[in-house]
Amino acid sequence: MKTSLSFILILFSYSFCVAQTDEAALKTIYKQSLTNGKSYQWLGYLSNTIGGRLSGSTNAELAVQYTKKELEKLGLDKVWLQPVMVPKWVRGEKEMAYFVSNNEFNKVNICALGGSVATPENGLKAKVIEVGSYEDLKDLGEAKIKGKIVFINRALQPDLINTFEAYGGCSVERYRGAAEAAKYGAVGTIVRSLSSRQDDYPHTGSMSYGDLPIEKRIPSAAISTNDAVKLSEALKQNKDLEFFFEMSCQQFDDVQSYNVIGEITGNEFPNEYIVVGGHLDSWDLGDGAHDDGAGVVQSMDVLRLLKESGIKPKRSIRVVLFMNEENGLRGGRKYAEVAKAKGEKHVFALESDSGGFTPRGFSFDGSELMLQKIDAWRPLFKPYLIHYFEKGYSGADIGPLKDDGILLAGLRPDSQRYFDHHHAANDTFEHVNKRELELGAATMTALVYLVDKYGVETTLKMKEIKD
Amino acid sequence: MKTSLSFILILFSYSFCVAQTDEAALKTIYKQSLTNGKSYQWLGYLSNTIGGRLSGSTNAELAVQYTKKELEKLGLDKVWLQPVMVPKWVRGEKEMAYFVSNNEFNKVNICALGGSVATPENGLKAKVIEVGSYEDLKDLGEAKIKGKIVFINRALQPDLINTFEAYGGCSVERYRGAAEAAKYGAVGTIVRSLSSRQDDYPHTGSMSYGDLPIEKRIPSAAISTNDAVKLSEALKQNKDLEFFFEMSCQQFDDVQSYNVIGEITGNEFPNEYIVVGGHLDSWDLGDGAHDDGAGVVQSMDVLRLLKESGIKPKRSIRVVLFMNEENGLRGGRKYAEVAKAKGEKHVFALESDSGGFTPRGFSFDGSELMLQKIDAWRPLFKPYLIHYFEKGYSGADIGPLKDDGILLAGLRPDSQRYFDHHHAANDTFEHVNKRELELGAATMTALVYLVDKYGVETTLKMKEIKD
Ligand SMILES: [Zn+2]
Ligand SMILES: [Zn+2]
Repeated sequence: MKTSLSFILILFSYSFCVAQTDEAALKTIYKQSLTNGKSYQWLGYLSNTIGGRLSGSTNAELAVQYTKKELEKLGLDKVWLQPVMVPKWVRGEKEMAYFVSNNEFNKVNICALGGSVATPENGLKAKVIEVGSYEDLKDLGEAKIKGKIVFINRALQPDLINTFEAYGGCSVERYRGAAEAAKYGAVGTIVRSLSSRQDDYPHTGSMSYGDLPIEKRIPSAAISTNDAVKLSEALKQNKDLEFFFEMSCQQFDDVQSYNVIGEITGNEFPNEYIVVGGHLDSWDLGDGAHDDGAGVVQSMDVLRLLKESGIKPKRSIRVVLFMNEENGLRGGRKYAEVAKAKGEKHVFALESDSGGFTPRGFSFDGSELMLQKIDAWRPLFKPYLIHYFEKGYSGADIGPLKDDGILLAGLRPDSQRYFDHHHAANDTFEHVNKRELELGAATMTALVYLVDKYGVETTLKMKEIKD
Repeated sequence: MKTSLSFILILFSYSFCVAQTDEAALKTIYKQSLTNGKSYQWLGYLSNTIGGRLSGSTNAELAVQYTKKELEKLGLDKVWLQPVMVPKWVRGEKEMAYFVSNNEFNKVNICALGGSVATPENGLKAKVIEVGSYEDLKDLGEAKIKGKIVFINRALQPDLINTFEAYGGCSVERYRGAAEAAKYGAVGTIVRSLSSRQDDYPHTGSMSYGDLPIEKRIPSAAISTNDAVKLSEALKQNKDLEFFFEMSCQQFDDVQSYNVIGEITGNEFPNEYIVVGGHLDSWDLGDGAHDDGAGVVQSMDVLRLLKESGIKPKRSIRVVLFMNEENGLRGGRKYAEVAKAKGEKHVFALESDSGGFTPRGFSFDGSELMLQKIDAWRPLFKPYLIHYFEKGYSGADIGPLKDDGILLAGLRPDSQRYFDHHHAANDTFEHVNKRELELGAATMTALVYLVDKYGVETTLKMKEIKD
């Protein structure tokens, strides 16, 4: 009993001392970001001066050059480009679509899904069969589907509090819908936009034909939520109405691109790496301010805020601006492949790819012991209203780094507005709030500071002892 | 020891049973709000069809009639208007302002502060003296101030996480600036807008001349943050520059208006009252969507969501839509005065007047025992990411109800964007997100449900026993 109590007291006083210093460090970090941050200014350039940055586009390469140059200004220990071949898909002319119902012409807002083939040159007109999910196609069978356009009208579930859950539930419709519909002889697919809002914006995103041979591939488009409702209503009145759409998108050969990497070399464990990153590429409809310009500039600012706050990391801290998250994940895979080939020991990776909204916390992918260690830092984050520390998904680009020794984390901003903008023409700079963006950068920096200072090693060693 | 343990076990199993049922109730409430809520539709009407609702205006009266009619549709037990006399201040023509510096004409965005007198008919032109706070006036003295326009250029402190704290730090400049400057012979005041953003919108808000006689009152305006920076820069170059502004605002006699009240009468303790409310009036520049259309429609939906969720309250639940929070608080005072005169026992009041943003929790003004009881409900709110339960300020309109037996609470939405819009022309419907608004209404309903079910009485009785 006595030993226990002393032990608790020692732990308590230790925590207390540590907490005082760390409290001051976090205060400095947040103050730096809110009074002297660069994330918003960088985002303005990426969004307004460059714009949408689809892999393989000129804009994507401009973003590579711009962010490299900006990282070079920060006085980091190293800045370099990591070559990676990326797919190049081009939208072409703005898409056009309509249907006629009750002798009334209805123009419809659509956009090609990323990876889709084009329609025939003069467009495609066919009857429509509406389903709630691609899974319903099997029951309908070829007789009812052949020669028609399959309209997958599945809305995000509104009563899920985390909108990413609602998105996750529906994204398979967009990704696999066309491949499945083609099997039953459909001539095209129209997928309800994965938006949490009723409006006129179609939301693009990646789709795949899987192993479907080229000649069997059918064009696939997203339709705005308002038009999905309108089309569904019209089909109730007239199931024989014809839908027309025209798209000229095209897939080219892969082209050379790059991940952009900057590093502060650690002064105690230089061969242990901490990665913080987001993806440089974006869809082409908006300017990619939330997805993922926000994650890019926040990650850049993590290294800058550490320097500005006078923090000299023990471990090597890298910012990695990944190329091609949206339609290939080539950058994420390449970074992990090179790291593995070089035998680089990565201890922690943090991704920001959920929009530049008010940060609420993090989700973590790591051992229970790592999570316990992190959980003890909650009180440090309380003054910044950071409360969400849960086990869960981290992020697509850092996923390939996963092994037993690494802790992966994803910044979790407030999710309510994200899918109003995601992959649509209204993902633009004006919808990013400066303070919200800066709070995210500070929150990431604070976590990187703590992981760098205390490591995830101690708990691992404890685990090793126990095992 | 044995007794303690049994007691704990009993408490535990009791909590467990209760928690299961309450979990289901909260799930229903949130689902209702997110799938079947009315708050967003009501807000669309208040904002877009009616618009800004300054006390004493036609719009304010339209809002009274509209909300009364909508409450009557809900099948409540009672709906009525509570008469209250309110001040009537009218802005008049759009304000005009400029200064000339280096032979360059600079048009400036200003607006009259609520309660200000007009400038002379052809405007007012004078030299400018810039201060960081009205507190600096004393040191400058009459010699340096007399005949000049006092420009109070105090920015919100950006590193405060809660923007209401930053606002609270500066709002006295707007409220008292003119009265203080007039004492030293100033001819007008220009106050930097209480905005957390750099932009061109001037933000109005109430000001007071205190006991300054009418003939000594000087006109007072807010200047946009961008123009405050520009003016300050120009003054560094040329301290003798002249500033011109013209305002035709006017104070009229008080006019008749109303609080709008609806009630579900309790089936067990009908004489115990729970109030939920926001304020119907707004400033005139925008449409008052966040301040406080959001609070109005959320409060209305609390009663509706209780009904839709099949909850029959034990206590009487009132929605009170207060008139004249912005420039008089007459509605809040009147409601408390009538309640006191009638001897109505109010046990709980909840106000929503911090914008329609993602709810984070509540601040509570009540006894420690009440707060402990509330704190035990935290786990119920966790699935909805509601984490903030702190002692603090509740709200202006429910403040006059304060006594020892009542628990007061304020909904605390995310505060980062609020002062971008507050009292400015960009406080408009398009800046309210439907899901965020609905989550707020659900969160309020959930708390009202729990307080109604469990009361704050038990802890009070425990307290009485202890005392
Ligand atoms: Zn992304
Ligand atoms: Zn208000």
